[in-house]
Amino acid sequence: MTRTVLYDASEVFCGPDERIEDGAVAVDDGRIVAVGPSDAVTREHPPENAETAIDASGRAVLPGFVDAHTHALFAGDRADEFAAKLRGESYQDILVAGGGILRTVRAVREARSEELLANLRSHLDVMLAHGTTTVEVKSGYGLDTETELRMLDVVARADDAHPVDVVPTFMGAHAVPEGREAGAYATEVATEQVPAVAEQGVAEFCDVFCEEGVFTVEQSREVLEAGLDHGLAPKVHAEELAHVGGARLAAEVGATSADHLLHATREDAAALADAGVTPVFLPGTAFGLGAEYADPDPFVAADAPVAVATDFNPNCYARGMGFAVTLACVGMGMTPADAVAAATRGGARALGRDDRGTLEPGARADLVVVEGPSHVHVPYTFGTNAVDVVVKDGEVVHAR
Amino acid sequence: MTRTVLYDASEVFCGPDERIEDGAVAVDDGRIVAVGPSDAVTREHPPENAETAIDASGRAVLPGFVDAHTHALFAGDRADEFAAKLRGESYQDILVAGGGILRTVRAVREARSEELLANLRSHLDVMLAHGTTTVEVKSGYGLDTETELRMLDVVARADDAHPVDVVPTFMGAHAVPEGREAGAYATEVATEQVPAVAEQGVAEFCDVFCEEGVFTVEQSREVLEAGLDHGLAPKVHAEELAHVGGARLAAEVGATSADHLLHATREDAAALADAGVTPVFLPGTAFGLGAEYADPDPFVAADAPVAVATDFNPNCYARGMGFAVTLACVGMGMTPADAVAAATRGGARALGRDDRGTLEPGARADLVVVEGPSHVHVPYTFGTNAVDVVVKDGEVVHAR
Ligand SMILES: [Zn+2]
Ligand SMILES: [Zn+2]
Repeated sequence: MTRTVLYDASEVFCGPDERIEDGAVAVDDGRIVAVGPSDAVTREHPPENAETAIDASGRAVLPGFVDAHTHALFAGDRADEFAAKLRGESYQDILVAGGGILRTVRAVREARSEELLANLRSHLDVMLAHGTTTVEVKSGYGLDTETELRMLDVVARADDAHPVDVVPTFMGAHAVPEGREAGAYATEVATEQVPAVAEQGVAEFCDVFCEEGVFTVEQSREVLEAGLDHGLAPKVHAEELAHVGGARLAAEVGATSADHLLHATREDAAALADAGVTPVFLPGTAFGLGAEYADPDPFVAADAPVAVATDFNPNCYARGMGFAVTLACVGMGMTPADAVAAATRGGARALGRDDRGTLEPGARADLVVVEGPSHVHVPYTFGTNAVDVVVKDGEVVHAR
Repeated sequence: MTRTVLYDASEVFCGPDERIEDGAVAVDDGRIVAVGPSDAVTREHPPENAETAIDASGRAVLPGFVDAHTHALFAGDRADEFAAKLRGESYQDILVAGGGILRTVRAVREARSEELLANLRSHLDVMLAHGTTTVEVKSGYGLDTETELRMLDVVARADDAHPVDVVPTFMGAHAVPEGREAGAYATEVATEQVPAVAEQGVAEFCDVFCEEGVFTVEQSREVLEAGLDHGLAPKVHAEELAHVGGARLAAEVGATSADHLLHATREDAAALADAGVTPVFLPGTAFGLGAEYADPDPFVAADAPVAVATDFNPNCYARGMGFAVTLACVGMGMTPADAVAAATRGGARALGRDDRGTLEPGARADLVVVEGPSHVHVPYTFGTNAVDVVVKDGEVVHAR
């Protein structure tokens, strides 16, 4: 018996050039077993025989969103800094007052693991209700071996306890801890934290904040190469605030993704495309700061399969992938089809997951039903959630 | 016995300069009977004796949002035009292809009233879940007497059938109908539609789109003065796409509000303030179009109590007031306190409602509980809904 059938969908969105009108999807054992015109699929997999049948008439069916870049595990928030900036205080003022990322580091070091886990689970609930079925979560608010390991342990426990798949990334090189020097700390990350993280066996990726005033290209390379030596695939926060060579580094070390890229050049885009590095855009960060958006054109010109993610963190309190898709359109000028693909297939590539992010037989059965008749309703609807139903591994895990 | 008590709130937000830490609100007969420090309020109104007691610890209590400008009653949508614009088609291309506002007019004329009512009720459900307790809804997709009256009748029925208070505005002068000349049509609105609308007795306001290529200042004046003669208070869509004198007109006729104001001058701001006209900003429209935001500074300098609203319509598919507040901060540079006040007290002023939009004894008991400890969490949280609980006229009408 077929487990789940979604039928009579106005549109089944498999990719920008693969949209099936009046379509259906059938699922068994957590995998998609058929996608196609509703009459053909339902002849083979009658809804009346399925354990769960979803009439998607008037609505579109999309792959579940894959949010490939978040810092979703933290304690406290920084709402007061959001307000301070709007009162005209500079980031420097906020740092001097003890704010910024190192404040979150202090909060995380002081938080009990149970509190961290409860926070993350509540965020995962919100993400799931907004259609995210796979999310990457970085460590990086510990900045010492013990707390980094503790964060990754919490990420693993959240993954076990929640329907959303959580992909753990180690990011000991997220910032330079108070009172430390960047070079010496990068060496500590490479020689002490990375081996401990590898031994723990939770993290899949190793990420670094390669940026003016944070870690240089050479310091970043030291961390990423240590990660590679220990089986951690590289990711790079690259060219966010200035052009320092992070994108080129990502290409050189064969990173899975290079993220932010606001100051990336056409040459960077080509280098990433040649090296098979997925560019990840985070338009929510630019939105929240009132800053410029990344320009997707060089990446489109280089034929790179781009991703769009939320960058959810205390400085960008944005958990919904639908809003990231809206920003990719409204802010970055992407078409709705390309933006939705970037939030699904692109996100999956940015996490090295080729089993999801599209709708085809054999793929993991992670799907969403949205309230409008096409994928366009995801960006078109802003300020509210366009997602009606979420299916994870073939099971309905959220419905409103 | 007290009907409802909200207690132990991290913050009770009465206005930008009136925020009570560890506060409480007590409600009876649909009105606020006490606001103040939680220990004082609960001594007088013990939660254990209330019919409904809400422990708001860790959360903020705000007035319900008053959305003072929407075109929420329509049929169909225009998602395909959103996509077409992102593919590079101009508004002119879209008009030539039969799109734009006159397409919605055709859809509304063809729709049965039951369908229109069902559409509006579903939108009101979404708005309510996002904290809106009072919303203005304009006619203006009929552009003939019969359909305009039918729209207003649907608005009245929606108001009767839904907890959200719906304020009806007549806007026969929303656009020039196909094949008509603006001057002759404005005269029809003034001499035929306005008297019929007054006779129907539903509409409270009369609004006009005073804009280059739509209605001139003199045509707009003709419509608004006819409305005044028939007891309809004026509102003006003013200075949105160009500076044509709509704000000055609003001041001259003593309008309740002047809305959009992207091209308003410092003199306009002063004239509106002198005449007691509430300026209404609609940052969602600018966001959706990727356009400039209105500048609130001249209005703040003129000491005008501004409002922020959604402008929800098929071209701005934004129903959540929380997102309008985020945009007022991130896009327009308002402080969170001023933006929240604009979305509550400001909205109430823009609708001539002095019984709501703040929390004080005697005010209508329309309140929201948000998920964070202060009003700042409304703009700080973007892409998801910060509202946990909605109380309308003292009753819990939404909780998650
Ligand atoms: Zn990041
Ligand atoms: Zn309007």
